[in-house]
Amino acid sequence: MTEQLQLDTENSDRAYEIDADAIELILDAVEDGDRDHLIDLLDPLHAADIADLLEQVSSKERGALLALWGDAIEGVVLSEVDEGLRAEVFEQIPDEVVTEAVRALETDDVVDLVEDMEGPQQVRVLEALEDADRVAVKQSLQYPQDTAGRLMQRELVMAPPDWTVGHAIDYMRGEADLPENFYNVLIVDPRLQPIGKVALSTLMAKPRATVLADIMDEDFRVIPASQSQEDVAYAFNQYHMVSAPVVDQEGRLVGIITIDDAMDVLDEEAEQDIKLLAGVGDESLTDNVFDTTRQRFPWLAVNLLTSVLASVVIAQFSSTIEALVALAVLMPIVASMGGNAGTQTLTVTVRALATKDLTPANAWRVIRREVIVGLMNGCVFALIIGGVGIVWYGSPMLGLVLGMAMVGNLIVAGLAGILVPIGLDKIGIDPALASGAFVTTVTDVVGFFAFLSLAATILL
Amino acid sequence: MTEQLQLDTENSDRAYEIDADAIELILDAVEDGDRDHLIDLLDPLHAADIADLLEQVSSKERGALLALWGDAIEGVVLSEVDEGLRAEVFEQIPDEVVTEAVRALETDDVVDLVEDMEGPQQVRVLEALEDADRVAVKQSLQYPQDTAGRLMQRELVMAPPDWTVGHAIDYMRGEADLPENFYNVLIVDPRLQPIGKVALSTLMAKPRATVLADIMDEDFRVIPASQSQEDVAYAFNQYHMVSAPVVDQEGRLVGIITIDDAMDVLDEEAEQDIKLLAGVGDESLTDNVFDTTRQRFPWLAVNLLTSVLASVVIAQFSSTIEALVALAVLMPIVASMGGNAGTQTLTVTVRALATKDLTPANAWRVIRREVIVGLMNGCVFALIIGGVGIVWYGSPMLGLVLGMAMVGNLIVAGLAGILVPIGLDKIGIDPALASGAFVTTVTDVVGFFAFLSLAATILL
Repeated sequence: MTEQLQLDTENSDRAYEIDADAIELILDAVEDGDRDHLIDLLDPLHAADIADLLEQVSSKERGALLALWGDAIEGVVLSEVDEGLRAEVFEQIPDEVVTEAVRALETDDVVDLVEDMEGPQQVRVLEALEDADRVAVKQSLQYPQDTAGRLMQRELVMAPPDWTVGHAIDYMRGEADLPENFYNVLIVDPRLQPIGKVALSTLMAKPRATVLADIMDEDFRVIPASQSQEDVAYAFNQYHMVSAPVVDQEGRLVGIITIDDAMDVLDEEAEQDIKLLAGVGDESLTDNVFDTTRQRFPWLAVNLLTSVLASVVIAQFSSTIEALVALAVLMPIVASMGGNAGTQTLTVTVRALATKDLTPANAWRVIRREVIVGLMNGCVFALIIGGVGIVWYGSPMLGLVLGMAMVGNLIVAGLAGILVPIGLDKIGIDPALASGAFVTTVTDVVGFFAFLSLAATILL
Repeated sequence: MTEQLQLDTENSDRAYEIDADAIELILDAVEDGDRDHLIDLLDPLHAADIADLLEQVSSKERGALLALWGDAIEGVVLSEVDEGLRAEVFEQIPDEVVTEAVRALETDDVVDLVEDMEGPQQVRVLEALEDADRVAVKQSLQYPQDTAGRLMQRELVMAPPDWTVGHAIDYMRGEADLPENFYNVLIVDPRLQPIGKVALSTLMAKPRATVLADIMDEDFRVIPASQSQEDVAYAFNQYHMVSAPVVDQEGRLVGIITIDDAMDVLDEEAEQDIKLLAGVGDESLTDNVFDTTRQRFPWLAVNLLTSVLASVVIAQFSSTIEALVALAVLMPIVASMGGNAGTQTLTVTVRALATKDLTPANAWRVIRREVIVGLMNGCVFALIIGGVGIVWYGSPMLGLVLGMAMVGNLIVAGLAGILVPIGLDKIGIDPALASGAFVTTVTDVVGFFAFLSLAATILL
C-alpha cells in the first residue's frame, strides 16, 4: 500500500492546492529512483494537477521526474502543461514517448500541442498520428493561430434531419469511435451545412419513432472558423452555450467547440488583460530569470521615456523650484493622484471594451460621466490637499495652487483614461497593451505642468 | 414585415456587439410608443443582448422601454441584467410582471435574482413560486453568498445503481419536468450520496439491459455546498468538468452546478481582480456619477496618504534640493520606475496566487527570481539613466547616484511586489485589493529616500 494523495477541497484557503508534503513525497520517490512508487503516487492525481506539480518544482527536479516517469507519461498531462514550459518538457522526453502520448488525444488537444513544437518534432508527431487524425489536425493548423479553427475538435456526431430518434440511438450504439463527451447531435443538410441540433437530453426523452427534424432546435449559433478565440469565448459566456458548430466560409460544418475549451480561452484572455495592464507580457512563474527580465524590460523602458518626459517638464521650472523648494516636495502628490485616477478609469474602460459593454451607443454618456467623476473627486481632494498645503507650509496661496492643479489633473485623468483606450481600440491596437503608458504620461506631464506653472504665476 | 436584428459575427472588431443602428431602431419604436414593433424588434435578440441593450441606453430611455415592453419581459432577461442595474429595473416593472417572469426560471437563476431584491419584494416573489421551487430556493439562500450552495440548481436527474439503461431512458421519457439541459445521470446510494455518474452519451451508446452500476463513472468530483464560488470556478477550469454534484455536510446530494455557471463566476472573479488591482470597486458602466465617484474615492484617499508620506520623505531633504535643484527634476524617475517594476511583480504574483500556481513549494524560488530580475533590470536602467544624468547635467557623480538609487529601488520593488501579496494572502486579505497601495508606498518612499540620501552624502 502506498499513501493516497488527495487534494483538500474543504479548506477554503488551500482548496485544490497541491500541498508541500505531497510534492515532498513525490520528489523523494524521484530521488530514490523508485519508479513504481512514483507512478503509484502520481496515479490518483488529475493530469492538470500533475502538470501544476511539474510547474512548481525546479527545472532540475522536473528533469529527473520526467526521466524516471518515462513512457508512463500521458498525453493529457502534456496538454495541461503551461505553454511556456512545453518546449523544455518536450526536450526531456524521448520522441517515441511524445508521439505515443499524443496519439491518444482528441484532435483539438493535438493541435494545441503541436502548434508549440519545433518543426522536425511537429513533423514526427504528425506522421505518427492515424491518417484521419493527421488530416484533421493539418486542416486545423491551416487556420490562423487563436481562431475558432484552431480551437475546434473534429470529432462530432451528426445526422440527417430525416433520421428518427431510434435510428440515431442505434447509430451511436454501433459506432465505436464516438467523441469522449458530446452533448448534441448536429443535424446537417446534404451540403453539410448545420440546420439544427438535438440535445442528448431531448433525444433521450422522445419516443424512438420521432423524426429528428421535428425535435431539432433551430435556434443555435454557428461559429465561423476564422473567428478570433476571444470572440468565441465571449459568445459562449454571453449566450450560455455548451457547444457550438464551427463552419467554414461556405457554411459547411468543419468541427465543434465545447464550453470547456471556451472557458480555457476566457481564462487566458482575462489573464492576458490583467498582465498587459500591468505591463507584463506572456510570462509565467516557470519562466527563468533571463526570460522574465527580458519580458519586463520593454514596459520599464517605455516608462523610463515617460518619466524622463515628465522630468523635462519639471526642468522648465527649475528656477521656480529653486525659489520655493516646497514645490518639489508637493509636486509628486498631484502627479501621483492623477496617475491613479487615470488608471482607475482606464481599467474600467479596457474591461468594458473587452466585454463589449462600451459601444458607440453609450460612449458619450460614459465620457461625460468620467469627466464629472474627475471633477467631483478632484474638488474633494483639492480641499483636502489644499488644507494639507496650508497647514504644512502655512501658505493659503500654496494650498490654492495645489487644489487647482489637483482638480485639473483629475479631470484630465478621467478624460485620458477613457479616450486613450477608445482611440487605441478604434485603430486596432489592444487597449490593454498600450493605454497605461499613454495615460500616465498625460497625467504626469499635466500634473507637474499644472502645479508648477500655476505656482510660477500665482506664488512668485 | 419588420427588420430582423442580427448581430455581426464575422467582423472581428464588432463581433457580437449591438450596433448603434439597432439601438436607434429600438429607441425609435419606444419613442413612438409602438409596442408591437418593439416586441418584434426585440424578439430575435438573445436575452443577454437585450440586457446589454438595457445597460447601454440612458436611465430615462430604459424606463420608457421597460414601461412599453410591460408584461412581455421574460425572466431570462432579468437574469442577464447587470447586478448593479437590477434594483432600478425591478423598481420600474410592476411586481406581478416580476413574479410571473421569475416563475419560469430554474432555481439557480431564481436564487441569483432574489438575493439582490429588497426584503418585501423578495417575499412576494418567493410566495409566487411553486411550492417545490420555493423550498429549493429558500434552502439555497441558507448558504452564504458566493458559495456553491447559492450557485447550484436543484433540478437534476438521479437514479439508483441497480437500474438498467432501458429503465433510465424510459424514466426520462415519462418525466415531464426534466431540467432544460443536463449531461449526466447521477447515481446515488440509498442515503442519497452520489456514488457515480453516467454521461448521456454513454447511456445512449449502451444496450438497454446494461446495469447503470456497470457503466457508471466513479471518478468524479463532488463540490461541498459551502465551497467558495471562486474555488468552484477553479475546479471546473482545472479539471475540465462539465457538471458536478453538490453535497451537503453529510455528503448527500443537494444540487448540481453546470459549467456555464462556473464560467460566469470565472469571468466575474477575473473582472474583480482586474478592477481591485486598479483600485476600482464593484462598479460598472451603468453606475451613476455619484456611485462612481464614491466607489473610486477610497483608493484615491489611500493614494493621497501614500503620496503625502512620500512628500514627507522628500521634505527631509529640502536643503539638499535647494542646493541642487536637478535632484527635484530627476527624483520622480527613480520613484516611477520602482512603482512600475513593483506593479509588474505584484500583478504576476496576485494572478499566480489566484490560479494556485504560487504555493509554499515554489515561493522561495520565485522570490529569489524576482530579486534577481530586479537586480538585472536595475543594472540596465541604472546605466541608461546614469548616462542621461551625465549628459543632461554633465555630472558623472549625479549619474552614479541616479544609477545606484535605480538598482536599489528595482530590487526593493521586486521584493515588495512578491512579499506584500503573499503576506496579505497569508493573513486572509485578498491580495488584489490591498497590495497596490502598499507596494507603491514602499517604492515611492525607498525611491525618493535612496536617491536623495545618496545625493546628500555623495554630491554635497
